[in-house]
Amino acid sequence: MTHPIDAAAIRAAAQRIAPHIRRTPLLRLPAGALGTACDVTLKLELLQASGSFKPRGAFNRMLSAPLPAAGVVAASGGNHGAAVAYAARQLGIPAEIFVPQITGAAKVARIQAYGARLVQGGAAYDDARRASEARAAETGALMVHAYDQPEVLAGQGTLALELEEDAPELTHVLFATGGGGLIGGCAAWYAGRAEIISVEPDACPTLHTALREGAPTPAPVGGVAADSLGARQVGLTMFPIAQRFVKTALLVPDDAIRAAQRLLWDACRLVAEPGGATALAALLCGAFVPPEGAKVGVVVCGGNTDPGSVAG
Amino acid sequence: MTHPIDAAAIRAAAQRIAPHIRRTPLLRLPAGALGTACDVTLKLELLQASGSFKPRGAFNRMLSAPLPAAGVVAASGGNHGAAVAYAARQLGIPAEIFVPQITGAAKVARIQAYGARLVQGGAAYDDARRASEARAAETGALMVHAYDQPEVLAGQGTLALELEEDAPELTHVLFATGGGGLIGGCAAWYAGRAEIISVEPDACPTLHTALREGAPTPAPVGGVAADSLGARQVGLTMFPIAQRFVKTALLVPDDAIRAAQRLLWDACRLVAEPGGATALAALLCGAFVPPEGAKVGVVVCGGNTDPGSVAG
Repeated sequence: MTHPIDAAAIRAAAQRIAPHIRRTPLLRLPAGALGTACDVTLKLELLQASGSFKPRGAFNRMLSAPLPAAGVVAASGGNHGAAVAYAARQLGIPAEIFVPQITGAAKVARIQAYGARLVQGGAAYDDARRASEARAAETGALMVHAYDQPEVLAGQGTLALELEEDAPELTHVLFATGGGGLIGGCAAWYAGRAEIISVEPDACPTLHTALREGAPTPAPVGGVAADSLGARQVGLTMFPIAQRFVKTALLVPDDAIRAAQRLLWDACRLVAEPGGATALAALLCGAFVPPEGAKVGVVVCGGNTDPGSVAG
Repeated sequence: MTHPIDAAAIRAAAQRIAPHIRRTPLLRLPAGALGTACDVTLKLELLQASGSFKPRGAFNRMLSAPLPAAGVVAASGGNHGAAVAYAARQLGIPAEIFVPQITGAAKVARIQAYGARLVQGGAAYDDARRASEARAAETGALMVHAYDQPEVLAGQGTLALELEEDAPELTHVLFATGGGGLIGGCAAWYAGRAEIISVEPDACPTLHTALREGAPTPAPVGGVAADSLGARQVGLTMFPIAQRFVKTALLVPDDAIRAAQRLLWDACRLVAEPGGATALAALLCGAFVPPEGAKVGVVVCGGNTDPGSVAG
C-alpha cells in the first residue's frame, strides 16, 4: 500500500519548518530513575514552542500552500489551536480557533495570548471541528486540520526524524494517540526501523478501536486526557500507516496517567499534561513490558496544563 | 596562581560520577523566543537527579574518600541537602541534613523522601552549617560541604565540561551564584575559553561583595532566592578562581527573577525555582547585554519549588 507520507515528504517538512520550531532535546534516564528495569529515553517535546508537538504539523500545512487573506481556521482540543495561533502570529496572518467546552483554562489562555480569535462551544473536539469547517467555508480561510491532512502528518513526522538522528539505538518508541497525526507521521518516518507503540487512555480508545474494527470508527471520548487525546476517531490519512506499522495499541487507565504526571515531576521536574504523560504511563503501569534488550523511547508530547496540578 | 580545581580534576570527577548523574540536555532557542535579540542556549540542569546541579559535587565528594559507617552530614538551603540525601540513598549509607527555617516545603519534603534524617533550625544557611559541623565532629560522619571543598567544586565543574562539549560555540555563560561552588567549578573548567558571568539577587550579593572587597566577605541574605543562593559568603576555595576568571558579577532584583520564572514557564514549559531562574533574569532585565555576535549560554540550575508558583 502506498501513502503520501514518506521519508522525502518528512525531510521536506523538516526543512520548511526548521526556522520556526525547536529541535527538542532528549533526557536519557538509566534503569531505576523512573522505577523501570530498562533505560528510558524521553523526547522532551513538551518544551516545543506553544507547549506541544503541534506546531510541526501546523507550520508545515501553512507553509505548503498560499495563505489566503482570511488567514487560517482550526478546531482543537487546545494544543493544535495553540499551535495554529502561534504559527499565525509568527507568520503575520489572522487565526480563528474553535475549541470545545472541555478545553481547560491553560489552553484557552494560551490561544488568546497568541492573539487568535477563540470560539468555545460544543461538548467535545468533534463539535468544534464541525463548527470550524462551516466557518472556513464561509470565510475562505485555510483549514489547518488537527490531524487528518498529509502536510500535518508529514510535519509531525519530523519529530521522529529528530529522534532517530539523536537516538538511533531505539528499538521501541511509545506515543500517545488521539486523532493519530503524531503517531501516523512518526510511524511513516520509522517505516518499521523501530517498533511503534500506541498508548491511549481507556476512556479515549480511537486507534485501539480502529485497528480492531479495521477502519477508523467512532469511539468514546472521556477521562483526564480528553482535551488532548479526545478525537472521536483516528484520521483517514493515518489509518493505513497504522495498519502497516503500528502493531501494538495499548490502553491505560486514567490513574496510571496521573501517576505518570506525578513521577515526571518528582523524578525529572517535568510538567506534562495528561496526554503528554500517557505514553510513559504504559511503561510505568506495566501495560507495555519491554522485551529483553529493548532500547525504549517515550515521547512526552505536551505540557499545557496548570503546573500546580502535577504535584503529589 | 594555582588552585586544585583543574581540567584533570574535573575530568576525573566526570568519570567518577557518571554512573550516578544525568547528562542534562540543552534547549536551543532562537532570538525572540525569550524576547532577546540573541539566540540563547539553556542548559537544563533543573532536570538533574534531585532537581538541581548539586549531586555532581556531592557524589564526587562522597566517591573520593572512604565512607565512614556514620555516613554523611551536610548543611544546605535545601538543594545540596536533597542531593546528599539522594546520593546517600544511592550509595546505601545514612545521611543527616541540616537546613534553616527558610527552607521551603518542597525541599524539606524531597530530603525526607530520600530517607535522610532532617534537622531544621536557625535563620539562614550559615546557622545550619554551624550545627552540621558540630554534629559531624560528634559522630565522625563525612562532612559534604555545600560549596567549599575541592571535590565539590570539581564535581560542579562537570556541568561546564558537558556544556562545552555540547555547545562549543558559546562565548558567554551565565550562572547564578550563592556560595560559588557551581560557578567556581565551571570557571575552572572554562579557564578563560568563555566569559563567565555571575548573577546574584540584589538581596544575596556574596560574589559581588567578595570581588569588590578582594576577599570572601559576609553579605546580606534575603529575597526570593535565599533558600538556594543564600550563603553568607562565597567559599575560600572558589574565590581565587573567581578573581581570575569571573570578570562580571551582576545583581538583579527579585522582580526580575520572578519574571524569568514566569517566562520559562510561558515560553518553554519549564519550572525553575527562583535561584534556577536568576541567571536568565540578568539577560531578560538588561543587567547583562550581550555584545554583538555573542553566543550566550544560561544555566538553569534548579527546579525544587512548588510548580504552581511559576504560573502567571
